[in-house]
Amino acid sequence: MIVLFTDFGLAGPYVGQMKAVLHNDAPQHPVVDLMADAPRFDPKASAYLLAAYASGFACGSVFLCVVDPGVGGARAPLAIEADGRWYVGPDNGLLALVARRAAAVRAWHLTWRPERLSASFHGRDLFAPVAARLAAGQAPPGEAIEPAALAGSDWPDDLAEIVYLDSYGNAMTGLRASGLAPQSRLRVAGHRLSPSRTFSDVAPGQAFWYENANGLAEVAVNQGSAVAALGLAVGQTVAVEA
Amino acid sequence: MIVLFTDFGLAGPYVGQMKAVLHNDAPQHPVVDLMADAPRFDPKASAYLLAAYASGFACGSVFLCVVDPGVGGARAPLAIEADGRWYVGPDNGLLALVARRAAAVRAWHLTWRPERLSASFHGRDLFAPVAARLAAGQAPPGEAIEPAALAGSDWPDDLAEIVYLDSYGNAMTGLRASGLAPQSRLRVAGHRLSPSRTFSDVAPGQAFWYENANGLAEVAVNQGSAVAALGLAVGQTVAVEA
Amino acid sequence: MIVLFTDFGLAGPYVGQMKAVLHNDAPQHPVVDLMADAPRFDPKASAYLLAAYASGFACGSVFLCVVDPGVGGARAPLAIEADGRWYVGPDNGLLALVARRAAAVRAWHLTWRPERLSASFHGRDLFAPVAARLAAGQAPPGEAIEPAALAGSDWPDDLAEIVYLDSYGNAMTGLRASGLAPQSRLRVAGHRLSPSRTFSDVAPGQAFWYENANGLAEVAVNQGSAVAALGLAVGQTVAVEA
Repeated sequence: MIVLFTDFGLAGPYVGQMKAVLHNDAPQHPVVDLMADAPRFDPKASAYLLAAYASGFACGSVFLCVVDPGVGGARAPLAIEADGRWYVGPDNGLLALVARRAAAVRAWHLTWRPERLSASFHGRDLFAPVAARLAAGQAPPGEAIEPAALAGSDWPDDLAEIVYLDSYGNAMTGLRASGLAPQSRLRVAGHRLSPSRTFSDVAPGQAFWYENANGLAEVAVNQGSAVAALGLAVGQTVAVEA
Repeated sequence: MIVLFTDFGLAGPYVGQMKAVLHNDAPQHPVVDLMADAPRFDPKASAYLLAAYASGFACGSVFLCVVDPGVGGARAPLAIEADGRWYVGPDNGLLALVARRAAAVRAWHLTWRPERLSASFHGRDLFAPVAARLAAGQAPPGEAIEPAALAGSDWPDDLAEIVYLDSYGNAMTGLRASGLAPQSRLRVAGHRLSPSRTFSDVAPGQAFWYENANGLAEVAVNQGSAVAALGLAVGQTVAVEA
Repeated sequence: MIVLFTDFGLAGPYVGQMKAVLHNDAPQHPVVDLMADAPRFDPKASAYLLAAYASGFACGSVFLCVVDPGVGGARAPLAIEADGRWYVGPDNGLLALVARRAAAVRAWHLTWRPERLSASFHGRDLFAPVAARLAAGQAPPGEAIEPAALAGSDWPDDLAEIVYLDSYGNAMTGLRASGLAPQSRLRVAGHRLSPSRTFSDVAPGQAFWYENANGLAEVAVNQGSAVAALGLAVGQTVAVEA
């Protein structure tokens, strides 16, 4: 399975053009859209999201990851194998957390280049063909590097910020709930939030935080929008009160 | 074929996570997105939409249906076989109309539970694995119930309300056009609308109602937005003038 | 491969209903969403986009193209073979540029009709079944016509207008960069823009134009929105200063 994780947005031709490459080069492998709306131009917030959401996929899955504000510039193209899953994307921190949290990790800077490499769309021209090769069981076409040399190696284990707003108005943080005391309260945007097991355990309209289905601490309002009710935005700091 | 009908919205990881389960568990079966923007938190409006749009699919299709504001609460998980098509979703009325309108219907409350069941995402953890089993020809893992006991059994045969606004600004009603006299006029939001066969039969900018391609009475404006021009919203009452 | 190019928008059931037909009628062929947000009701702008984006696909690809404000009216349904790729859609100019730019082109008006043809959704009822047949290697079910007789035959080779705004806020023109002198400046909406190779070659916030990854001249702002910064909209005239 090849899994797409980008900030391309839902509209436009970009995701489809990458899929056309994948279907041509790796026709036996299903392609799944995990996210097309990762935090735009924000490899750091995206890295914590990706690490939380990739962990649910089977071994052998190949993640094609593009949050790449520096496309066409100096950042290197990267491939990583982390606990049996493969990742392709720019070396700008986007893959730093999946590498950090893996028990076994190997990394390569990609040296292969296509015949025609556009300046602005490495997702289609470089990363997608490499993802197709990895799905077919080929080795990464590049040179091995030390995982400790990856961009983002100095980022924290968890990110105490809002990293994603979903279409329901829930706000994901970069904090894994497993690292918080069960009765911790979260303070964000001037609000203090108590934990709940799930939505239907609180009254309609009430704000809370809970461990979402991928293990992140998430701020929500039952049958409402936490984003609108609390004034939340990506990048806001989250403080934990034990 | 496995068909997705949810209120998850287009953005975010949720639809992709369900698809990953389906591709893993039922790799031979194509997955089609029918709707990801069913009326949010509104199983009743969604039920009339689903009944209209499911009827065009082949026998043996499996519908994975999630409009589930009570997830994690007391409502039971449900599977239905209705005229040779299968449906999986919450027993909150969402499947009541496909059951009602079928010549042959059987229903089960699902008793199977996965090893890990999150409190907030039964679409991925419970409904998707069951949909994959049904696509593979297995029996629903639950106990048979009487269709008359389904939530929503007391809802009307047709719903005289706006149930969906599409991206063109057309407004679908929960009324099947086959139940209306051909020259009926519809009154909605203070406007009285005459019927037309199709868009190009009226002048640009003119409002009308017509039988849409799935048999519902739909309010539209030729080359314009009925939603904007007439001030329409989901839930508004529609009155029929014979 | 069957490729979808429509103005249906991302939401709603319409794309999914076409895919259900394609999976039923041509189950061996992957289906790729190229664009669901082509300029709405605008076959002319869409024609220049389609011609730029189709050229990257393999021979034998079948494009199902629906930007069809006159659905249900007098325009004929059309199939085209252009340099080994197939196209199905309305004869309203949408396919005029792929025909114009091909070295070898044949065209047919489709005379086949399905048993049930809705007045408003020929994409599902007529164009999708024909696309499935073409993918299976069958001949177009219609009568050959002269390509010179196609609607849009009098349109220019390139369109000096904004034709598409992407979700990053980049604005594509209908001008192929290969037809412009490398140092040309573009004037649009009162702004004069110099060329750059790519985003990272200019300062954050700076506006420029560049040859996008499909060969079109595109107006952009590094790490910003050209649409917002320059006040751009589809249909605005673009002047070239050599």
